[in-house]
Amino acid sequence: MIDPTILEAENAKRSAALQADYEALGAQLARRGIEIEALTTRAMGFGVAVPSWGTGTGGTRFARFPGLGEPRHIFDKLDDCGVIHRLTAATPKVSLHIPWDKADPADLKAKAAEYGLGFDAMNSNTFQDQPGQAQSYKFGSLSHTDAATRAQAVEHNLECIEIGQALGSKALTVWIGDGSNFPGQTSLSRQFDRYLQSMKAIYAGLPDDWRLFSEHKMYEPAFYSTVVQDWGTSLLTAQELGPKAQCLVDLGHHAPNVNIEMIVARLVRAGKLGGFHFNDSKYGDDDLDSGTIEPYRLFLVFNELVELENTPGLDLSHMIDQSHNVTDPIESLILSAGEIQRAFVQASLVDRAALAGYQDANDALMASATLRAAFRTDVEPILAMARLRKGGAIDPIATYRSSGYRARVSEIRPRVSGAGGGIV
Amino acid sequence: MIDPTILEAENAKRSAALQADYEALGAQLARRGIEIEALTTRAMGFGVAVPSWGTGTGGTRFARFPGLGEPRHIFDKLDDCGVIHRLTAATPKVSLHIPWDKADPADLKAKAAEYGLGFDAMNSNTFQDQPGQAQSYKFGSLSHTDAATRAQAVEHNLECIEIGQALGSKALTVWIGDGSNFPGQTSLSRQFDRYLQSMKAIYAGLPDDWRLFSEHKMYEPAFYSTVVQDWGTSLLTAQELGPKAQCLVDLGHHAPNVNIEMIVARLVRAGKLGGFHFNDSKYGDDDLDSGTIEPYRLFLVFNELVELENTPGLDLSHMIDQSHNVTDPIESLILSAGEIQRAFVQASLVDRAALAGYQDANDALMASATLRAAFRTDVEPILAMARLRKGGAIDPIATYRSSGYRARVSEIRPRVSGAGGGIV
Amino acid sequence: MIDPTILEAENAKRSAALQADYEALGAQLARRGIEIEALTTRAMGFGVAVPSWGTGTGGTRFARFPGLGEPRHIFDKLDDCGVIHRLTAATPKVSLHIPWDKADPADLKAKAAEYGLGFDAMNSNTFQDQPGQAQSYKFGSLSHTDAATRAQAVEHNLECIEIGQALGSKALTVWIGDGSNFPGQTSLSRQFDRYLQSMKAIYAGLPDDWRLFSEHKMYEPAFYSTVVQDWGTSLLTAQELGPKAQCLVDLGHHAPNVNIEMIVARLVRAGKLGGFHFNDSKYGDDDLDSGTIEPYRLFLVFNELVELENTPGLDLSHMIDQSHNVTDPIESLILSAGEIQRAFVQASLVDRAALAGYQDANDALMASATLRAAFRTDVEPILAMARLRKGGAIDPIATYRSSGYRARVSEIRPRVSGAGGGIV
Amino acid sequence: MIDPTILEAENAKRSAALQADYEALGAQLARRGIEIEALTTRAMGFGVAVPSWGTGTGGTRFARFPGLGEPRHIFDKLDDCGVIHRLTAATPKVSLHIPWDKADPADLKAKAAEYGLGFDAMNSNTFQDQPGQAQSYKFGSLSHTDAATRAQAVEHNLECIEIGQALGSKALTVWIGDGSNFPGQTSLSRQFDRYLQSMKAIYAGLPDDWRLFSEHKMYEPAFYSTVVQDWGTSLLTAQELGPKAQCLVDLGHHAPNVNIEMIVARLVRAGKLGGFHFNDSKYGDDDLDSGTIEPYRLFLVFNELVELENTPGLDLSHMIDQSHNVTDPIESLILSAGEIQRAFVQASLVDRAALAGYQDANDALMASATLRAAFRTDVEPILAMARLRKGGAIDPIATYRSSGYRARVSEIRPRVSGAGGGIV
Repeated sequence: MIDPTILEAENAKRSAALQADYEALGAQLARRGIEIEALTTRAMGFGVAVPSWGTGTGGTRFARFPGLGEPRHIFDKLDDCGVIHRLTAATPKVSLHIPWDKADPADLKAKAAEYGLGFDAMNSNTFQDQPGQAQSYKFGSLSHTDAATRAQAVEHNLECIEIGQALGSKALTVWIGDGSNFPGQTSLSRQFDRYLQSMKAIYAGLPDDWRLFSEHKMYEPAFYSTVVQDWGTSLLTAQELGPKAQCLVDLGHHAPNVNIEMIVARLVRAGKLGGFHFNDSKYGDDDLDSGTIEPYRLFLVFNELVELENTPGLDLSHMIDQSHNVTDPIESLILSAGEIQRAFVQASLVDRAALAGYQDANDALMASATLRAAFRTDVEPILAMARLRKGGAIDPIATYRSSGYRARVSEIRPRVSGAGGGIV
Repeated sequence: MIDPTILEAENAKRSAALQADYEALGAQLARRGIEIEALTTRAMGFGVAVPSWGTGTGGTRFARFPGLGEPRHIFDKLDDCGVIHRLTAATPKVSLHIPWDKADPADLKAKAAEYGLGFDAMNSNTFQDQPGQAQSYKFGSLSHTDAATRAQAVEHNLECIEIGQALGSKALTVWIGDGSNFPGQTSLSRQFDRYLQSMKAIYAGLPDDWRLFSEHKMYEPAFYSTVVQDWGTSLLTAQELGPKAQCLVDLGHHAPNVNIEMIVARLVRAGKLGGFHFNDSKYGDDDLDSGTIEPYRLFLVFNELVELENTPGLDLSHMIDQSHNVTDPIESLILSAGEIQRAFVQASLVDRAALAGYQDANDALMASATLRAAFRTDVEPILAMARLRKGGAIDPIATYRSSGYRARVSEIRPRVSGAGGGIV
Repeated sequence: MIDPTILEAENAKRSAALQADYEALGAQLARRGIEIEALTTRAMGFGVAVPSWGTGTGGTRFARFPGLGEPRHIFDKLDDCGVIHRLTAATPKVSLHIPWDKADPADLKAKAAEYGLGFDAMNSNTFQDQPGQAQSYKFGSLSHTDAATRAQAVEHNLECIEIGQALGSKALTVWIGDGSNFPGQTSLSRQFDRYLQSMKAIYAGLPDDWRLFSEHKMYEPAFYSTVVQDWGTSLLTAQELGPKAQCLVDLGHHAPNVNIEMIVARLVRAGKLGGFHFNDSKYGDDDLDSGTIEPYRLFLVFNELVELENTPGLDLSHMIDQSHNVTDPIESLILSAGEIQRAFVQASLVDRAALAGYQDANDALMASATLRAAFRTDVEPILAMARLRKGGAIDPIATYRSSGYRARVSEIRPRVSGAGGGIV
Repeated sequence: MIDPTILEAENAKRSAALQADYEALGAQLARRGIEIEALTTRAMGFGVAVPSWGTGTGGTRFARFPGLGEPRHIFDKLDDCGVIHRLTAATPKVSLHIPWDKADPADLKAKAAEYGLGFDAMNSNTFQDQPGQAQSYKFGSLSHTDAATRAQAVEHNLECIEIGQALGSKALTVWIGDGSNFPGQTSLSRQFDRYLQSMKAIYAGLPDDWRLFSEHKMYEPAFYSTVVQDWGTSLLTAQELGPKAQCLVDLGHHAPNVNIEMIVARLVRAGKLGGFHFNDSKYGDDDLDSGTIEPYRLFLVFNELVELENTPGLDLSHMIDQSHNVTDPIESLILSAGEIQRAFVQASLVDRAALAGYQDANDALMASATLRAAFRTDVEPILAMARLRKGGAIDPIATYRSSGYRARVSEIRPRVSGAGGGIV
């Protein structure tokens, strides 16, 4: 999909500058006692999954403005994911959403294999009604007051597991829209009981080598309460289900001002951190591109992950979860993968011995400065070198634009009308 | 649409209890030095406009779950508004949204006249693309970087004025989705300049007896910046445009914790308060039913309005602006009109002389208790009596349910599929 | 302290009006199928503890402006608490703060007995340094990096238990100011480990019939992280300590927009809700008088408590925790006790059978309206009757003012200068 | 105060590394079309004022934990400010707070001249009571209900101007604590009227070449309303007063999530931006060190300032306004000055032509990436070189620590007891 000669030509244009920057950075890091090659190796080992649905243009309740060459189905989406991985060399897995991505597993595996892609966690969908569906999710799914609706939602999740098994996935992520819009609409405690009952039924169908991720969200689509509103409830859920159940943290699903890195530290201690859904936001669940609003916050999350990376049993599942409303989704996913990787590398060059020393001495000023010294280091040469060595692009965006991919698929994929839409 | 015999029968069932409650309340108020009839008269004089689009089921970016008997077009919507006004006797005007509600003005006026309804402020729509539209609003409308797009958006607003003139409306409300999703995406200052330039073109086309309302909103659909993000920018806009320009306050469009009643006081002082869009919310622009989340906040807004009601030139335009996702929209609008009216009546029975005395004496405790004494007075008998005397229902919801209206229109209006939808 | 003849005279002035209001309300409630006497009995059985320190004037980091007749010591404070209980008949216990309230236990018990007061949970203080203290808490207490400082803080808590045992208290509340002001200042995970280690040492010294309350707080006095930042961490703590450890919820210690009633429901389900610190707030930990900012929020908390009141093992400890900066603290405590009691009574008249029916039928509108119907019922006659029957005042504030108590103690207690203060 | 030989020795240790880093950065910037020397010149021209009171240890309402060598009076504070400017070469002015810093103007000027320091805006204090003061500010100052209290507060501000004139200051900053703690406590509109009346009296006494800065704050010390709660009210105030009145933006005084850079753009357009009070915060008015919590936010503010720096009449007054609770205040001020300067230099290397091009083309992805490319450039070599060339320290913190200044003044300045304090 990306012409190798274009890739090579683009890299050739930038390799001298990269070499110079990489050497200068290496020299500076060496003076700070850090070996640049170790960081590059770490960067090369880093991967984050891409959600299949992220390749389409998102929208808001007010409108959706489609872009050119919107993917028509999961195979188009896999093509797009292949492009992203080809250029970034950092997105080796795709996360599917059922029923949107339903297809013959053999075909899916074959297509993914073309691009060297694997399958990450499966995502179920009980926050929308599908054509022909017997029960509506208007008033909930796994926690619905009606047993038949709950059973239908459980069944759907079990089907997701089944599909995932055929594809080699090892996890199911459950996020539901259940909750309420008005005080009194639902019994907060009875609704949670029903949710747990349903989750237990799903858990009972989970293969031994799978994990079940519970994802909390403060609000939206429900606007007064959501069943799994925060990490406390997510933790209670995972504790009640058992060892294969863990908590997923989506960076955009929290109350204003919440210290997310503390949640990370607490969930690791409780043995219940399963992984992340990465994005960035200023106001709510904005689903903006990772690292675009508060890059230091992303760094602080990775600072915890790196500090705790040797915790026994810790095995994190990272995914990008964004809504691309005004950009080419492929470009946003490329950049976002890079920003996440950047935070990981910056966190990796924190001088942890010095930091611990300052912490133990209550030298707040130097401890805090130690983190910032790592954060402000421009590690772009390390990221670019990691991509180059893995066969990717020094500058993935410029290379993607040179490749003409979007224009090419726009000819094949029919134009989607921007008219209509909008729910308000 | 509502069988008068049913209305009478329902009222008959409740009139004795109402009479008893009304008398008991009257006696209690008399002991407090308040004349209940004066309050009932005020309640009878109160009205709030209903937005045409509020009669349909709303949704979120995740899904929309339609209800039964969804209105097919503006005439169905006017039927629904007629029912609301018939039962509440408090919603004498309808606010139209163009192009959704485009129709022959004569037909619109005739239909509205059937129900004794008038037309409130006109609402333009440049936050969505319409079929066949030359320029897309994906990257903005009145503040777009492209002059042709701005011109198209201005032209649309001028058309809204023209339609409104034919209908007897006297105001145009401009709310736009323009803004940006990422720092840097737009020049905050140049974008605002373009917005003002466009607004001036609209203002130039405004009839002498019309007003132009500018409505601020902190975020959504744009998630990093919006052109008119708060009342400060709305004020600057109204000041720059001229005396016919005023600011509209939507209760859901503010940052967390913001003291909205202060904004009310400030805008009144600046001579720039135009009116309200009423709704309630817990997290953001949740567009929930008025008075369901924080009823005291609604009361405090009306406390300012009543305190300042004799300000020269103050002429407020009140509208409900809600998204009804899990209720029958007619029921939500009926109840919301009642909650808004309730806050108005409660604010009207504040002992203002005592309050001012406590304030001047810095008796914070009694001043605050004076407001709460008004708020906790159960004025439902006053509201019910006001409805009854104006020919409405003592219990509008029970009467509506008895009327069988929804079932009846569900037979006429085709069922809308719940499948699909959802933008995420 | 309150002249009985004044109390009787004040009550006499209001008894006829009370009788009339009580009967009218009784009749209205009877029509709604509710027996007023049952509610009055519940109101009479309700009590909330007063914190000894709440009787003094509070302040901010900017300034403290003392009032007249500030209590000089715990015995003055007990006098003030006696007045509050005499008038409200709803504050039967006092919560002590050590070392501020240290005194001979026999003297304390004797003084309290004069007013029919008992002792609620003990409160330790490791967020300030005391004269002569060996180790400073500048950088933490129970979670300090230095073992000697932690040991000192543990020892202080054990002493609080010892004092409490002498007084008949049955619980220790631990709230600490530990945390950090800057990212990196502390290791979030190692600091929490140290905290747990210290808490286990305190727990080990807890008598069998005592409880240990852990209180979470999002921020302040630490401004980047606090060790027990939310209910999730508080829950983890209580789980790790054992069955005598429970979580205390202070209404002001949460992130903006957080749904506190959900936390109540979750902690009850986890068997870990210990009780409340009541106050109200608009922005942060404002410590304002209960029910003055968002009375419906307070009602919603009690709605959960009443719904779940028959949960086996639930035994709640309620305390007022406010800072009275611009009012007479006695008056604020009197009114606050009433507002809390009001929310309890309002929640008690929710038609729970109807509510459950609406919830099960997904009738969001009527379910929500059912709560509001209870909330808007003016239960003041019930509260006043409960006070009257227990020997308190129909109008406690008016009676307090008539009593001349503040003027009297102002003559005895020396005037505190308002000069100085303020830390900024 | 800082031994020049130590400064030289410290610089000598680091000059080779600085030279290497500076050259590497220069080469990289040159490849990006940026001339490093121009940036260094800009960095050398940048200055931010230090508040006299920032040299003391701050605290919270819970406690204050003094450090060693706390300044006893304004002359000690000027010594500390001299050290900061000596090492950073970026803090040429000191901002005084009256009455805290009252002293003979000739002595103040002489002391300041020793360190090459000038005097920035004067700060009045009507949020605390001073010994012997006739009227208390417990219930307000410039907006108090009592005319005598307002007159006293006006008089104090006029005295601040008088002192400032003797010192060569050219501006008065007015921040008041006035507001209310409870709904109803004050009339929002009448209180604002009184405030404006008082401000006009102060404005009338302002010399022709002075400016009057109005500073808004959302809450604290008042917890329900503050008179100048946001930039909208601050703007109204400045408009009403006249051309010498402008608005000051303190980064910590906003509602959660507010987009401060938009406020900057709006105030510049209105011709009313006067300057900044710099600090950082996570939750509220935390007054933490600049750039420690969200460095990208600080950058975005400077991005606006640099974009708009050629606006006619723009003349900004920058000050640090922080509370140093757990660090050596001198160290925090040194680092903060550097972080503010860093944001200024990063914003100065934004490729504005490219940015404008992307903005005009609605290339959201590249526009946003253009800002981030500037932000992630590690400009520390430029800052260090600017300091070195102006006679300051390459590494000011390390040099300060080597100098032994704190230990030296600790011997002279008596130890302040940490006991007591805390208002809660």
